[in-house]
Amino acid sequence: MSVEPPDGAAPHVLVDDVEVPVLAEDSLHHLARVRRLRDGEALTVTDGCGAWRPARFRGRAEVEPDGPVVVVPAPEPEVTVAFALTKSDKPELVVQKLTELGVDRIVVFRADRSVVRWDEAKAARQHQRLVAIARGACEQSHRCWLPVVERLTDVADLAARGAVRLERGPVGISLARPVVAVGPEGGWSEAERDALPETAGLGPHVLRAETAAITAGALLGAMRSGLGR
Amino acid sequence: MSVEPPDGAAPHVLVDDVEVPVLAEDSLHHLARVRRLRDGEALTVTDGCGAWRPARFRGRAEVEPDGPVVVVPAPEPEVTVAFALTKSDKPELVVQKLTELGVDRIVVFRADRSVVRWDEAKAARQHQRLVAIARGACEQSHRCWLPVVERLTDVADLAARGAVRLERGPVGISLARPVVAVGPEGGWSEAERDALPETAGLGPHVLRAETAAITAGALLGAMRSGLGR
Repeated sequence: MSVEPPDGAAPHVLVDDVEVPVLAEDSLHHLARVRRLRDGEALTVTDGCGAWRPARFRGRAEVEPDGPVVVVPAPEPEVTVAFALTKSDKPELVVQKLTELGVDRIVVFRADRSVVRWDEAKAARQHQRLVAIARGACEQSHRCWLPVVERLTDVADLAARGAVRLERGPVGISLARPVVAVGPEGGWSEAERDALPETAGLGPHVLRAETAAITAGALLGAMRSGLGR
Repeated sequence: MSVEPPDGAAPHVLVDDVEVPVLAEDSLHHLARVRRLRDGEALTVTDGCGAWRPARFRGRAEVEPDGPVVVVPAPEPEVTVAFALTKSDKPELVVQKLTELGVDRIVVFRADRSVVRWDEAKAARQHQRLVAIARGACEQSHRCWLPVVERLTDVADLAARGAVRLERGPVGISLARPVVAVGPEGGWSEAERDALPETAGLGPHVLRAETAAITAGALLGAMRSGLGR
């Protein structure tokens, strides 16, 4: 039997502690006002670190446990997708999709050819926004592992983790190198190529940066779920 | 040497005939006014049916051929992704991504639990809109095969093509069954399950409908490009 929570209509909600599940204010509002859950209706709660349990909504922040705590093992190996800072709403789309696809770490980095620049305040706000997107996607996709959305970083940091640089070319992405970095639309600089000498391809075509990031997450996730085994 | 057009800064533009390449009015406007191409600058033109060639912009609709016509073989097998009619801007996102990923046929179908309904006029307008999205994505990703975006259809039509119904479950998507159908957020009806008895999974998790469609396109495209070979 699967240890995953069911994917039916019952909401799946992040809480701090599944032993004593208490809804955050916005979760309570969402369940009571938007989803109009009534007293006694079923939900599942998770701590985003693998543990979940069934519970009943009681119209208040405290939910009533309605079954044992189940622990979903952490998927192996840990998968990280890093992508260069991009303009408009693309980071939101990428974080949402990578969360649904089960990527464990989501990293945004400054690239030499990133068109956008974030100062410290903007970076902090954006980080908060992306964490909120990941939480929403985690709940919506009934996952029990919330990805870590890291603070804005740089290529030197990616190099220290042995990240593979994605380039146009034959499909070579693999779980043997589960930290992958997607460059900006303008491409990698010479210095970045030197810093990240290992490359892998997603296919012979040009993908938009956000499509490359989502595709990398889809392929690594599918491989980890047994594709090609 | 690759027969694909280069993915550099030079624009890649759909034309009716690569033998006598003439830009459509909106393409001419885009190159001259938005991209500000100057007389003599390089571009590539494609007919969307595999043929492309290098050319030079001359500030008018007629472009000057600047090299031989190259033909990119049609990828095999033909890959089709069908997805249920969804609300908001999701069809646009899916068509854009599936085009970038090299899917050959993109099908939107009415499902029993499709929340949205299109009447005939709306379906025609939406079809036109989705074709335009596919054309834009084809140019942007420097592809020489424009996917066929079909008119709104139904599950009986998908059944006649031997479509595989995607369901939550172990990754089982494969090029042996290259026509896949993604259900609406509300799930498949009993009648639809009967009509499409063959199923395949994308993994153990709940994916939003548009994420499932993009993931299916990414996996089939990657398999066709050699993943797992």
